[in-house]
Amino acid sequence: MEIKKRKEHRLIKALYRQPVDCTPVWLMRQAGRYLPEYRQLRAKAGSFLKLMKTPNMAAEVTLQPMSRFDLDAAIIFSDILTIPDAMGLGLHFVEGEGPKFDKILQPDNLNSLKKPIASDFDYLSDAIRITKERLTTKPLIGFSGSPFTLATYMVEGGASKKFSRVNQWRYMHESAFVDLLEQLTESVIEYLQLQIEAGVDCVMVFDTWGGILTLDHYKRYSLAMIKKIFAALGPICKEKSIPRIFFTKQAGLWLDAMKSVDCEGVGLDWTIDLGVARSILGETKALQGNLDPACLLASSAKIEQEVGKLLAQYSFGSGHVFNLGHGITPDVTPDRVGVLVDAVHSLSAQYHAEH
Amino acid sequence: MEIKKRKEHRLIKALYRQPVDCTPVWLMRQAGRYLPEYRQLRAKAGSFLKLMKTPNMAAEVTLQPMSRFDLDAAIIFSDILTIPDAMGLGLHFVEGEGPKFDKILQPDNLNSLKKPIASDFDYLSDAIRITKERLTTKPLIGFSGSPFTLATYMVEGGASKKFSRVNQWRYMHESAFVDLLEQLTESVIEYLQLQIEAGVDCVMVFDTWGGILTLDHYKRYSLAMIKKIFAALGPICKEKSIPRIFFTKQAGLWLDAMKSVDCEGVGLDWTIDLGVARSILGETKALQGNLDPACLLASSAKIEQEVGKLLAQYSFGSGHVFNLGHGITPDVTPDRVGVLVDAVHSLSAQYHAEH
Repeated sequence: MEIKKRKEHRLIKALYRQPVDCTPVWLMRQAGRYLPEYRQLRAKAGSFLKLMKTPNMAAEVTLQPMSRFDLDAAIIFSDILTIPDAMGLGLHFVEGEGPKFDKILQPDNLNSLKKPIASDFDYLSDAIRITKERLTTKPLIGFSGSPFTLATYMVEGGASKKFSRVNQWRYMHESAFVDLLEQLTESVIEYLQLQIEAGVDCVMVFDTWGGILTLDHYKRYSLAMIKKIFAALGPICKEKSIPRIFFTKQAGLWLDAMKSVDCEGVGLDWTIDLGVARSILGETKALQGNLDPACLLASSAKIEQEVGKLLAQYSFGSGHVFNLGHGITPDVTPDRVGVLVDAVHSLSAQYHAEH
Repeated sequence: MEIKKRKEHRLIKALYRQPVDCTPVWLMRQAGRYLPEYRQLRAKAGSFLKLMKTPNMAAEVTLQPMSRFDLDAAIIFSDILTIPDAMGLGLHFVEGEGPKFDKILQPDNLNSLKKPIASDFDYLSDAIRITKERLTTKPLIGFSGSPFTLATYMVEGGASKKFSRVNQWRYMHESAFVDLLEQLTESVIEYLQLQIEAGVDCVMVFDTWGGILTLDHYKRYSLAMIKKIFAALGPICKEKSIPRIFFTKQAGLWLDAMKSVDCEGVGLDWTIDLGVARSILGETKALQGNLDPACLLASSAKIEQEVGKLLAQYSFGSGHVFNLGHGITPDVTPDRVGVLVDAVHSLSAQYHAEH
């Protein structure tokens, strides 16, 4: 019953490359700082972590953009660093600097990491359950950071610009690095299973930093782990018709290598032509993306024009989920998001009519 | 006489895709913080700007790696932000944060910019002349930041991670942005002409940030300006046999668009396979790159192995200048650079013998 309903959502159909009436759309960071109601709730919570770890509030934030815009999916409000947080590194957020950990992980100190257990993430399971109760007409996406991306933050002690420590680990401490990545892979699998049990309709892995690597290292340190995750989730996802998506930023040159991942969708950033990506990946994967997020700063007319250009680049009917190439930035005016969402639905119908 | 000598250098020959005995090599930031003798002179100067603007010291820094390693070229020690500095924005460097400007440029305030004149860069011309007197056996590379990259720093007020202001300019203040880029293009042309007059043997344009754009914006806001620069320098460079190189980081997906630039060499970062790049660009351009800079943190054996892999990827004889995909980082041990340079010369000979 639940699965039957899931299979009828535009998002789910598009990810399985089945016919749809128009292209579904959701946006990375669609629940976030650009929304005044988000900023209000964030202020009430007192901190980002409090907001994220209070199930009622996290559900509320998840649903905020759904009441404003005709989005085809919600994504549970959370952070990619919940797993390192549960491993005991002491996550906190410094205003204007992004995430930081109290401890920087060292190659000889992997044993200090706690193995996360399901109850560490009760706040997330609860938020998913509450959201699903309130969101009856649209699917809910669950997500995790990729092992490589999580490791990057853990090794650097937070956000980084130069990745000096990651660079040292991948060339000087290879076996410790692989050990860390394998621990994270196991945790990500359990983390996504837990979200599936709580009721998400789709799962996505965000590999924010895989694109800083060489192709060899991307395959070894990032893609191999994503493959393991999706292979482990394959049976339950197939049984429940839950599509799997992953997104590596700045990896448009490596789509060929991504073919071998057993998943339904691949996210793309704004640097690659959607038609080119379709020709490499489109026979086996749905594509998700890839409007330049900065385009939301432009006029409505310009946004509509750029949406039209992007839809024309794809123009193969189903198998496309419209999204930005990265998250919405805080300086975006909410009404521009509405313009984008409506433009995707109205301008894409022509590409689906004949299919 | 001078030109005849210039044409005999391994670097110059490789850039003109003429036969060489082995692959030439130089490294971005080969003169820099990883060298103890650099740190010593930097301490003596008191500040980075003082070091750069004192011709004797800048020449000394330029030559430091040449005494240690068998590099095939020197690159004049300077900074890409000298032009914005001469425009009156007040360049300074904050320890650990990189470059900053006293003033952040606003779209309605372009008139406040000074037009740089030749004498603003006397320190650079002098440093080039002194270096050329002392460096008689190897060519000297002159360089500039690309207009887009310079504009990025000027608009952001320094180094940026999110490029919020650039994103606003390129979607909300397009005509001011083009105006700024055109002013910068004119200054870059004059700046490189001045370096040619002072005696450099090769010119390079660094487009550090062009890769954050969409392909459309890359063409309009970055590549169009690089084309103008190299078109303007074409006659003098051809007359004097001075090859022209440009490098856009993170632009491996856009090599097709780069074909139309009238230049001899294209720099590549470490994300693209050199053989793939050769198949797209190699008939008309020499390629420069593209070892992962982090590889210099690895063991000597590993460095040699990676150099060998990269040479095998190219393996078409001349038309390749070995380099890193980005600059040497301060945590590199100098002897590893020696290992790399020697490995390039010894392992590449086999690919040139039969040509």
